[in-house]
Amino acid sequence: MQLSDFRFSHALRVRWAEADLQGIVFNGHYLTYADVGITEYFRAMGQAYDAETGVKGADFFAVRTLLEYQSPARFDDMLDVHVRIARLGNSSMQFLIGIYRDETLLVTGEIVYVHADQQTRRPTPIPQAFRDAVCAFEKVQPGGAKPS
Amino acid sequence: MQLSDFRFSHALRVRWAEADLQGIVFNGHYLTYADVGITEYFRAMGQAYDAETGVKGADFFAVRTLLEYQSPARFDDMLDVHVRIARLGNSSMQFLIGIYRDETLLVTGEIVYVHADQQTRRPTPIPQAFRDAVCAFEKVQPGGAKPS
Amino acid sequence: MQLSDFRFSHALRVRWAEADLQGIVFNGHYLTYADVGITEYFRAMGQAYDAETGVKGADFFAVRTLLEYQSPARFDDMLDVHVRIARLGNSSMQFLIGIYRDETLLVTGEIVYVHADQQTRRPTPIPQAFRDAVCAFEKVQPGGAKPS
Amino acid sequence: MQLSDFRFSHALRVRWAEADLQGIVFNGHYLTYADVGITEYFRAMGQAYDAETGVKGADFFAVRTLLEYQSPARFDDMLDVHVRIARLGNSSMQFLIGIYRDETLLVTGEIVYVHADQQTRRPTPIPQAFRDAVCAFEKVQPGGAKPS
Repeated sequence: MQLSDFRFSHALRVRWAEADLQGIVFNGHYLTYADVGITEYFRAMGQAYDAETGVKGADFFAVRTLLEYQSPARFDDMLDVHVRIARLGNSSMQFLIGIYRDETLLVTGEIVYVHADQQTRRPTPIPQAFRDAVCAFEKVQPGGAKPS
Repeated sequence: MQLSDFRFSHALRVRWAEADLQGIVFNGHYLTYADVGITEYFRAMGQAYDAETGVKGADFFAVRTLLEYQSPARFDDMLDVHVRIARLGNSSMQFLIGIYRDETLLVTGEIVYVHADQQTRRPTPIPQAFRDAVCAFEKVQPGGAKPS
Repeated sequence: MQLSDFRFSHALRVRWAEADLQGIVFNGHYLTYADVGITEYFRAMGQAYDAETGVKGADFFAVRTLLEYQSPARFDDMLDVHVRIARLGNSSMQFLIGIYRDETLLVTGEIVYVHADQQTRRPTPIPQAFRDAVCAFEKVQPGGAKPS
Repeated sequence: MQLSDFRFSHALRVRWAEADLQGIVFNGHYLTYADVGITEYFRAMGQAYDAETGVKGADFFAVRTLLEYQSPARFDDMLDVHVRIARLGNSSMQFLIGIYRDETLLVTGEIVYVHADQQTRRPTPIPQAFRDAVCAFEKVQPGGAKPS
């Protein structure tokens, strides 16, 4: 993971209720942090998530989340959640996540979403307008991206 | 993932606050379910987690969590969280997780813990008594296990 | 609060992620426990909450939650969440909650719901069938209840 | 509740995982918001909470939390959590909380903490330095405050 590959990051502070008896953030909360980071990534890109309809009609569903924990975050830490789209397939996309405290990499993540119909759950192509927005926004062109 | 490889499972019901606007469980909550399953696995094995000292002196820290989502759980669903230790290294162990609703596999998981000193975070060997308990408990002998 | 006034209770175990750095359950989680208890109360009464339509068409919304903490719950504690409806107004109802660990009362609660239209949020009468079910189920007749 | 009585507020955005099937924030999460607001209040006052020792040796424990819900917050809403200490007893203090979205008051709260020894749980006087800091910080002098 190269920090310089990320164009976007979102800062947040660890809440009291997110640290456990070991004094460290419970692992599940990092998926919340990643989700907050991705929401803000969409907003920064000008494609803010619309709770009514999903992004442009269908919706994205997580199909895979991988987190690797290098060093723990603690109560009151300020974290930077770095987010980028590293792969943009026909109906799926892969986010890479890097959660830092200052210069220290705490957690790396990979989150894959599939764009699918809300009722049938069948994959549908990611709209071209969204693909174009990603390509225009990202520093490192995502694998699989075909801008119009 | 072979359901028949699991000796242990724990049943739980999806809480209202765990389902999101899409009507489905937010991905981070499955790590909580896995954690509840692992706590109950320890208890069933006769090695209930002791919050004061960690298991036998040091403690286990998650270093890797992978979840793959096949089908969503919804509010009020009864889930079975299947748990087994599939690999037992010198100071690390790998759990496999299978979350089912009746016969339907919803989420598969892999969670790796390292046994480490709480202060220094340096890995320390998993105690032999714990290893023996795992080997006596599991149906499928974990890779890397060397019972005494 | 009289324990003998409660007909119903639901048992649950404190999860790892619910205990904080002080070793005790973060206060907000008791509202989750109360909510789980109320869901199970509805089920026991034969009026299981239907996520699609709310209970009988409209839905209940919390308007007031009061918790008083006498003694803390800790990780792995088994708790009994006692639940009863103590007042049943025209469009609102008041739950009383008592959370015990064995004989020890840890937290008392009062939760008031209003039955309202999901769109307009205007209060609507609680259906008579629901009122009758409450009156048939409760040990101590709720204040304000007028069974048909 | 008078908005003008509050000197301090903290802004936060509703997270995806905090909105439920009704599209609104689950009630327990407002206690998390209040807790975040209080943490930031302490920081603004120059008495940032020290997870190692509690504030000045002992620690504050919540004994009462009351929330009244006027209007729901939804996913992605920006909220302002207004916080003030309205009463400062010998070993307890009462916070008032007002959660707004723009000009709209959504939730009011009252949270009472007792300052107590972490081991014995017996109340101990709130340190004078802390009392002085509160009196110097607040706009409306808390009831019961006796600055040195």
